[in-house]
Amino acid sequence: MLVMKEARDGRTTPELEAVAREEGIDVALLAEQVANGRVAIMKNANNDHRPVGVGEGLRTKVNANLGTSSDASDIEEELLKVDAAIEAGADAVMDLSTGGDIDHIRRAVVERSTVPVGSVPIYQAAIEARRDGRGMVNMTSDEILDGVRKHLDDGIDFVTVHCGVTREVAGHCRRTPRLADVVSRGGSFLMEWMSYNEKENPLYERYDELMDIVGEYDATISLGDGLRPGALADANDAAQIAELTVISELVTRARERGVQTIVEGPGHVPLDLVASSVELEKSLCHGAPFYVLGPLVTDVAPGYDHIGAAIGGAVIAMSGADFLCYVTPAEHLRLPTIEDVKEGVYTFRVAAHAADIAKGVPGARDWDDRFSAARRALDWDTMMELCLNPEKAKTFRDAAPPSDGRLCSMCGEYCAVHKMSGVREREGK
Amino acid sequence: MLVMKEARDGRTTPELEAVAREEGIDVALLAEQVANGRVAIMKNANNDHRPVGVGEGLRTKVNANLGTSSDASDIEEELLKVDAAIEAGADAVMDLSTGGDIDHIRRAVVERSTVPVGSVPIYQAAIEARRDGRGMVNMTSDEILDGVRKHLDDGIDFVTVHCGVTREVAGHCRRTPRLADVVSRGGSFLMEWMSYNEKENPLYERYDELMDIVGEYDATISLGDGLRPGALADANDAAQIAELTVISELVTRARERGVQTIVEGPGHVPLDLVASSVELEKSLCHGAPFYVLGPLVTDVAPGYDHIGAAIGGAVIAMSGADFLCYVTPAEHLRLPTIEDVKEGVYTFRVAAHAADIAKGVPGARDWDDRFSAARRALDWDTMMELCLNPEKAKTFRDAAPPSDGRLCSMCGEYCAVHKMSGVREREGK
Repeated sequence: MLVMKEARDGRTTPELEAVAREEGIDVALLAEQVANGRVAIMKNANNDHRPVGVGEGLRTKVNANLGTSSDASDIEEELLKVDAAIEAGADAVMDLSTGGDIDHIRRAVVERSTVPVGSVPIYQAAIEARRDGRGMVNMTSDEILDGVRKHLDDGIDFVTVHCGVTREVAGHCRRTPRLADVVSRGGSFLMEWMSYNEKENPLYERYDELMDIVGEYDATISLGDGLRPGALADANDAAQIAELTVISELVTRARERGVQTIVEGPGHVPLDLVASSVELEKSLCHGAPFYVLGPLVTDVAPGYDHIGAAIGGAVIAMSGADFLCYVTPAEHLRLPTIEDVKEGVYTFRVAAHAADIAKGVPGARDWDDRFSAARRALDWDTMMELCLNPEKAKTFRDAAPPSDGRLCSMCGEYCAVHKMSGVREREGK
Repeated sequence: MLVMKEARDGRTTPELEAVAREEGIDVALLAEQVANGRVAIMKNANNDHRPVGVGEGLRTKVNANLGTSSDASDIEEELLKVDAAIEAGADAVMDLSTGGDIDHIRRAVVERSTVPVGSVPIYQAAIEARRDGRGMVNMTSDEILDGVRKHLDDGIDFVTVHCGVTREVAGHCRRTPRLADVVSRGGSFLMEWMSYNEKENPLYERYDELMDIVGEYDATISLGDGLRPGALADANDAAQIAELTVISELVTRARERGVQTIVEGPGHVPLDLVASSVELEKSLCHGAPFYVLGPLVTDVAPGYDHIGAAIGGAVIAMSGADFLCYVTPAEHLRLPTIEDVKEGVYTFRVAAHAADIAKGVPGARDWDDRFSAARRALDWDTMMELCLNPEKAKTFRDAAPPSDGRLCSMCGEYCAVHKMSGVREREGK
């Protein structure tokens, strides 16, 4: 039985109860949001991951993209990245492996993770077709759907499927050439496939079958934006928006069948267009949860793309996005190291938390107020306990310890907080 | 002759010409903005620093705070930080030294810097009074003004003076206690002085004399926000806004005398209040350039305060702020290292550039478009030349080099950009 249908029938499920407890909200309210598709619960019956809710009214979630490439495919390191991401507070991870034994890696990641795991199943059919010598353009429509089933059977909780990259939509990129063309891997595979075979995208054409498969596992469809802008110049262009109009239709069809959907978003977006991009998604896609990559607010900062993406991420989440995919400092340059994964997750937790304070998610601001009360009291033990990453904060402080343990070496004896406590004490006398 | 008066009389000066050239704008337009106080040119006749303009219509500038504390006062390291900040692209630096031989350090920083240098002269009188055994509360009003003159005579280009912390304004913090009270060092010195001496803030009371002193050097007054919020809970409170109403008056008085002023801003501000804080400053302070510290959009992230501050900084600059003071990863924990200084400047350059794209500063987006054209062509040499920090980008890429030099190890052979160039080539045939 699908959780969306259970919710519509007024029944609660263990997943709904777990998410409501985790979010500190009423289970009946959550069920209503799930019933109308404004919240999705990421889970798959074939694993024991903690179910995680994404959508309106809930805490903004952070996903960490992991996975091997043809240039780096050490499974042990991947599993350490899973640990690092979850320890840093990631709410979900995606296994985007394209190098090495991808079946083995996926199963190991699902086994290792305690949080929902996502994947992009088209990689499966594409890589298998390439590896068996036929070439990617010769993967069959059946193989593409079988890839989805395989991933779900392995316990994947949410699958990114680029169903909106239709031939009609793809035509926009030819008729109005873009600065960066198509930068999504799955999107580019489908563009090549459609161009070569002169056939419609099977993920669109066989969407009903796809929904049946996903429904069997009560997993979540993440409608990928294969034509997301890869440069500021391409943001909000006809290709991107046309794809979103197709996704609008696909969200409606999924809801009719009780299959949960989330919608993926850009990409590279100038800061002044960030808010409107989520407003547009929420309108076109009937309030479906919005899952965004960044967005990056400049193209020029490889090595600092986590910064540009955190700026975009905070603003888009404040404006209504529900689920942020991190960007690490390694983006556009190489696969992230374990350290990059940690930095990416913590960076995006700052963005997500800032957004949650701004959008008034219950309890978000309490954390800051408790922390600032400790700072006012110069209570370093409590500050170190409460702060986002105690290990890093301690390392920084201890690298240049103050001569007076109540202070820090930045202001030393001229600490304003210390001075004011003296002023107030004297005034109180 | 004051640059503001020259501009009002329709004369251009070498400084105006240099800034107009640097910004790529018409010198007559710049002169008009300087004449009406919407742009300030930071410079001091006693040094050969490059003049830098801040204000409406100009590129958003980034300042790096440097300086020793009682716990760390190595002058050689300070000078290396000056070099690092400028090499990373800082438009100004502030010497906030409070430890060691502060006169010697200030003069060496002014000598070493090629960009405007700011300072907080009240530290001078406060530290001298403390060091000669009288205690900070016994510094005299004359000593406070003499400190300003000394700094300007040493070649400081812009002086932060907390003239708006009047006794009336300070009373708000007692009548409506704050979570974090006063967190500005200069602000706390004046709060203590006023409380102990039961006298008005000399920087307010003797503001006319102060303007005469600053005017002699044609330097810029930076009206410090001594009561800036140090916790989200205190943002936009009565104390902060009351101080801004006093600063409103001080901006008008300075303009009447032809003395250039900029106004300093918060601090810690929830993301949803960031835009209104600059709108309020621009209204109350008659369009005066706004110089902000961050703002930090969460209190809980020591070690990641550069991230939270870059988020706030990008949004406040997009909304109209003109000059961003960086925050480094070391904020609230210790003095920044040379590496922290670099990270802080590059992080804030991302924020400033994202804002400049959003507010349409001429030429800002061109950089991204040229970079993305190189990315589309997989032209790594051009990408590495054009990107924000080529050294860092190269280090990242080289740490896990791709087997195919046209690609990167993130996606390896499945690079979407590479694939699409094949698709387009085939379609073109």
